[in-house]
Amino acid sequence: MYTVGQIADKLAANLIGDRSVEIVGIAPIQSAKVGQITHLSGSTYQRYLPDTSASAVILREANAAACPTSALVVDDPYVAYAQVSQLFNHTPRIPIGIHETAFIDASANIGSDVRIGPFVSIGAESVIGDGVEIFDHATVASDCSIGKNSIVKSNVAIAHAVRIGDQCLIMEGSVIGSDGFGYATSQTKEHHAIAQLGSVQIGNNVDIGAKATIDRGALEDTIIEDGVKIDDQVHIGHNCKVGKRSIICGCAGLAGSVTIGDDCMIGGGVGIAGTGPLHLVSGVYVSAMTFVSRSINEPGIYSGHTLHTENSKWRRNMTRLNELDELHKRIRQLERILDTEHDD
Amino acid sequence: MYTVGQIADKLAANLIGDRSVEIVGIAPIQSAKVGQITHLSGSTYQRYLPDTSASAVILREANAAACPTSALVVDDPYVAYAQVSQLFNHTPRIPIGIHETAFIDASANIGSDVRIGPFVSIGAESVIGDGVEIFDHATVASDCSIGKNSIVKSNVAIAHAVRIGDQCLIMEGSVIGSDGFGYATSQTKEHHAIAQLGSVQIGNNVDIGAKATIDRGALEDTIIEDGVKIDDQVHIGHNCKVGKRSIICGCAGLAGSVTIGDDCMIGGGVGIAGTGPLHLVSGVYVSAMTFVSRSINEPGIYSGHTLHTENSKWRRNMTRLNELDELHKRIRQLERILDTEHDD
Amino acid sequence: MYTVGQIADKLAANLIGDRSVEIVGIAPIQSAKVGQITHLSGSTYQRYLPDTSASAVILREANAAACPTSALVVDDPYVAYAQVSQLFNHTPRIPIGIHETAFIDASANIGSDVRIGPFVSIGAESVIGDGVEIFDHATVASDCSIGKNSIVKSNVAIAHAVRIGDQCLIMEGSVIGSDGFGYATSQTKEHHAIAQLGSVQIGNNVDIGAKATIDRGALEDTIIEDGVKIDDQVHIGHNCKVGKRSIICGCAGLAGSVTIGDDCMIGGGVGIAGTGPLHLVSGVYVSAMTFVSRSINEPGIYSGHTLHTENSKWRRNMTRLNELDELHKRIRQLERILDTEHDD
Repeated sequence: MYTVGQIADKLAANLIGDRSVEIVGIAPIQSAKVGQITHLSGSTYQRYLPDTSASAVILREANAAACPTSALVVDDPYVAYAQVSQLFNHTPRIPIGIHETAFIDASANIGSDVRIGPFVSIGAESVIGDGVEIFDHATVASDCSIGKNSIVKSNVAIAHAVRIGDQCLIMEGSVIGSDGFGYATSQTKEHHAIAQLGSVQIGNNVDIGAKATIDRGALEDTIIEDGVKIDDQVHIGHNCKVGKRSIICGCAGLAGSVTIGDDCMIGGGVGIAGTGPLHLVSGVYVSAMTFVSRSINEPGIYSGHTLHTENSKWRRNMTRLNELDELHKRIRQLERILDTEHDD
Repeated sequence: MYTVGQIADKLAANLIGDRSVEIVGIAPIQSAKVGQITHLSGSTYQRYLPDTSASAVILREANAAACPTSALVVDDPYVAYAQVSQLFNHTPRIPIGIHETAFIDASANIGSDVRIGPFVSIGAESVIGDGVEIFDHATVASDCSIGKNSIVKSNVAIAHAVRIGDQCLIMEGSVIGSDGFGYATSQTKEHHAIAQLGSVQIGNNVDIGAKATIDRGALEDTIIEDGVKIDDQVHIGHNCKVGKRSIICGCAGLAGSVTIGDDCMIGGGVGIAGTGPLHLVSGVYVSAMTFVSRSINEPGIYSGHTLHTENSKWRRNMTRLNELDELHKRIRQLERILDTEHDD
Repeated sequence: MYTVGQIADKLAANLIGDRSVEIVGIAPIQSAKVGQITHLSGSTYQRYLPDTSASAVILREANAAACPTSALVVDDPYVAYAQVSQLFNHTPRIPIGIHETAFIDASANIGSDVRIGPFVSIGAESVIGDGVEIFDHATVASDCSIGKNSIVKSNVAIAHAVRIGDQCLIMEGSVIGSDGFGYATSQTKEHHAIAQLGSVQIGNNVDIGAKATIDRGALEDTIIEDGVKIDDQVHIGHNCKVGKRSIICGCAGLAGSVTIGDDCMIGGGVGIAGTGPLHLVSGVYVSAMTFVSRSINEPGIYSGHTLHTENSKWRRNMTRLNELDELHKRIRQLERILDTEHDD
């Protein structure tokens, strides 16, 4: 429980209203009740403002006049909402200390105020920073390091020699440092595994979603830079490098040696894979379900997905797609007859 | 081992043949042997009926005359086959009781006849219903509830405050209740995590496949209604709602706030994501590998995948696809010349 | 540490240079330093050979003359590189023996020189071959068998009665033997689960990636043959059969009853699913992100993905794709007028 005044102070917001009003939770503007705080970020929701029952609204200067209750005026209401949401984050924590069922190798180096849950295992020589929290059944293999205040959720597997920075959040069931997928195929068609001698380096403030996989590098390391946010079920192949603050949405997959610049946004279900190493420059947005098979050298928005339509219509269009080059030739022939030929 | 008579009774089938014949297993109609029961559901398999070696066949009235052995006549042979298959389901069970290596928080509430395997951990205040079975290395965090006779397989991670109904089956390695993927990005391009304060509610008779991920809601809960069946590697984002009896096939992914009506079928590898919350009404079928980027307001079958073809042909067609709007303009020009212009 | 002579002997390479030079690691040809070995496999890298600082280079006869340092001449430098990489593979091993925290059912049969890590659980009657290594938190259910020298990484779940051959590598977090996805739907729209009575058989020298899922068969077994290599996040449905040495890249998904011949290559993100069981003959290559919805009866390369392009251009082309059949009719009309009609 916080007062409106306490919240305004934390946000450095300009408060218009009573400091002493008590806030017990957060809700969307159209369903918020007395005792709840809400935010007005997008213009779509502006129409709900006059009638909101919320006890306080985080909003921009321009909307303050129309606010029927306490207004917390900020420059960026959505960021302020994110900050307030953390005040009400009651995710249960593992108690400080090492759970009686956990197994910590005698040579591991455990920081202060560390929280280690049931059945966690930590291997030889691994270094666990101050304030780190590790949930049930997580495996941290040997020679790893996990930076200050990072959180490793249940059933995560972190393989040997992986380095994770400070303030990271590794969600349930993800795998970091599994072997990259590399084989040399002989003339007899047998596949000889190439040892994956690199590791994975993860910067600070990185979030990694549930069931994500980040493979270790072949000779050098796979690198995830500071501030990157990776969603559930994402796969990152060996020797990839993901630049600062880039976002990778659910179910996307990066083949080996893909490098992505800073501040990119890779949509859900996107695949990035080519015949050689691909590179996307900083500031590239790739729409959901697009396949990227060549490097992208200019910032911008790129798409490659198809659009769903009613099934029988789609079938007819797909039949034509599979004869599109033929159709093109027929158009050229018509143009030749009518003398309107194009260069192509 | 069952007699044909016992099986007929369980199915409420009309038995034509000897009740005392013993059945030890099930097999497809074309390979079934003496002592096995089979079923004739699709017309494709009708030709195998006269020569089947099975000791009993589950079939429709119309096929009974052609059956060379005991016939169990039912309205829906495929459903009856599903029911008989469960009689021969010998999946080993965890013994009733709590395995000596499991860790159960003292404040957890464990029902009667519960089966808890090695290294299971159950957090504070969680309620485990009667007859629940939990396999090795599963994590049930605090404040969860799992309804009667539900089964949680090995290495599953269920985060705090998740509610699971009765008779559910949660397959190996799935994650329920991981944080949704939500950030507010500041003008300095930093991503501020929005606390995911909701949870996940799962109804009765829900199956969730191996390595599936179901994220907890931001402010309200993610909801999976009764009778839903979810396959392996499916991802369901925060605040999704999946209606009764809908089926989601392997590797499909739903972005946040997607709602799906009752009795839908989402094919394998489908992606559903748009610029705002998407809604699919009840009775929508989406073909495998389709991308759904807008809401669907009418029941029906929808597709959006492309069809594979020989590589060099495909390359030529794809080149033309990337100039399709240009081709369209050329057709308009020809039409203008020939005075057959269309409106578009 | 090895001498060049020792490495040459292991590769049966023709050594041109000093046997006694010491090698401490491997690096790419352009960045290798003194004390490191490298390889020259593709012609792209040939230009780096004259100036490499490596202490030894694995290469073909044709490149030997241009080599400024010790040359190890072999027929296939890339395969030789894979072999040498294993010499420098220092992945930490679980010590021989059974970790004090592991739980092994009394009826399990454990071979010699087995390495079993923390919190591993092994069920009744399971047979663990000589030299097998099982990492933290892996579950091996009852009635399983794991062949000689196979490695099971952390947090893997192997369900009952799964059979795994010799020299296999099962990466972190994968699931083998989860129930296949099979239901019979009644007229009241309820889904009745079909018991999955088969299991999974995995041959020798099979690698399975992190977070892969391989479902058990309905009546018969799902089969993965010798030498198959499966990448991370791959899903293989029940009753699939994958032929010898086939490769399945990351995030690909096979629906139930798909059979793939020998020496196939299934690209990343590929989906294979049809209305009935699909079959791909030996020697089929499927490009990344392709959807295969019909059987493929001829070896060759097949594609079906679209190519990304700048977003606004893509939108226009996709609009035209959804009216392609209509465009085709307009072309026919023009042809009719100009009397150049085609048969289609």
